[in-house]
Amino acid sequence: MKKAVCLLSGGLDSAATAYIAKKQGYSIYALTFDYNQRHRREVQHAKDIARKLGAVEHKIIQLDLASIGGSALTSRRIKVPKTGSKGIPATYVPARNTIFLSIALAYAEVVGADSIFIGANHIDYSGYPDCRPEYFKAFQKMINLATKKGVEGHKIKIKTPIIKMSKADIVKKAVALKVPLEQTWSCYKGGKKACGRCDSCTLRKHGFKQAGIKDPAEYET
Amino acid sequence: MKKAVCLLSGGLDSAATAYIAKKQGYSIYALTFDYNQRHRREVQHAKDIARKLGAVEHKIIQLDLASIGGSALTSRRIKVPKTGSKGIPATYVPARNTIFLSIALAYAEVVGADSIFIGANHIDYSGYPDCRPEYFKAFQKMINLATKKGVEGHKIKIKTPIIKMSKADIVKKAVALKVPLEQTWSCYKGGKKACGRCDSCTLRKHGFKQAGIKDPAEYET
Repeated sequence: MKKAVCLLSGGLDSAATAYIAKKQGYSIYALTFDYNQRHRREVQHAKDIARKLGAVEHKIIQLDLASIGGSALTSRRIKVPKTGSKGIPATYVPARNTIFLSIALAYAEVVGADSIFIGANHIDYSGYPDCRPEYFKAFQKMINLATKKGVEGHKIKIKTPIIKMSKADIVKKAVALKVPLEQTWSCYKGGKKACGRCDSCTLRKHGFKQAGIKDPAEYET
Repeated sequence: MKKAVCLLSGGLDSAATAYIAKKQGYSIYALTFDYNQRHRREVQHAKDIARKLGAVEHKIIQLDLASIGGSALTSRRIKVPKTGSKGIPATYVPARNTIFLSIALAYAEVVGADSIFIGANHIDYSGYPDCRPEYFKAFQKMINLATKKGVEGHKIKIKTPIIKMSKADIVKKAVALKVPLEQTWSCYKGGKKACGRCDSCTLRKHGFKQAGIKDPAEYET
C-alpha cells in the first residue's frame, strides 16, 4: 500500500485533504505541529481526526515557533485581526509552510512515503505567500535535490489537491468523503466557541453558506 | 548594521562561517538546534562560540528529530559508522539542512536579517545531498516565493562561504579569523574525547594535518 504523510492541523482544509489522500488509496502518516500556537485546541482536534481517519501513525512534533515570534498566531503581543485587513495579514507565521513541509519531508523519507499532502488553498485564502502554487512548485524542485531518496531517484511528491477549490467546494468534498466536520476547528482564537470574526472563521462560514450545508461549529457571533 | 542569521552547530565549519559573516560586517543572530542528537555536547560548544563571537542573540531551538529517526545521529538503533563507508552514510539526517534553513528563514524574516550563513562544505564532506551547491540554489529559489519579505521584494540570501574550500583551507581561515578552535567539537559521538574514527573526526584531523596546524581537540585514537 502506498504511503502518504498528511499535514493535519485540526482544521477543515487539512482534514479534507487527508481524506482525499485516503480515498486515493494511501495509508496515512499524519503529522501535526504543536508549535506554541496561540491555542493548542487544534492539536486535540487533529488527534480526533487522525483517529477517525484510521491513520497508521500520528506524529505530533513540538516546535517552539513562539520563541521566534513575528505572528499573531505565535505571539501574544500581536493581535489577531478581524477579517478584511489588507495585504498579508498579521496571522502570517514566518516560513510556516516551509518549516512544516521540511519536517514532513524528513518523516516521508524515514517511513518511505512517496507523497506529502498539504491542505493549502489559493482561492478563498488569507493571502499567505506560502500557499501559492508557484511556491509549492519551487519547494518540489528543492526537495528533489535535498534528500537521500531524491538522489537515489525516488522522488517525494508534494500534493495540494484542494489548492484551486473554493471553500464551498472543499465543504462539499468533505461531506462527500465523510470528514467528521464537527471535529474540525478553524478559528484562530481558542475560545469555547469559534469567534466568528477572524479571517479563518469568516472564510469557513462563507464556504458552508455557499455550499448550502449546515456548519456544525458553534460561533460567538 | 546589516544582520545575518548564522547556523551554529558547535563544529568547526559553522564556527568558521559565523566568523566570516562577522568579518563581512554583519551583526550575528546565532541559531542552534537541540534536536535530540546523539549527544548534546555540541549545543554547549555552540553557546561558547556564540559568546566569544559577540552574537547579538543566540536562539536555541528544541526540535525532536529523534522522534522521526532514520539517522545514526538521532537514533540509538543505528550505529555511527567508521569512516570510509560508501554512498550516503548512516549519519545522514533526513532533510536536516532543509529543516534548519527553514527555521533560520523564519528567524531571519522576524529579525530583519538579509542573509543566512550556513557552514556547508562540498569538498571534504560526507556525501550528504543537502550540502551540494545545486541544493542551495534550489532552496534559494524557493524562499524567494515563501515569505512575506520575499513577496515585498526583500530577498533573504543563503550564503555558503566555505562550500568550495578544502578542510585545510577552512582550518587556515579559522585561525586567521581567530575562531576559538578549542571550543569547537566535530566528533559525531559524545565521549569525553573525540573518537578520532568517525567521518567527522577523520576529516577534521586530515584538515589540520594538511594545514600544518595543531588541532587542540583531544582524540581517543
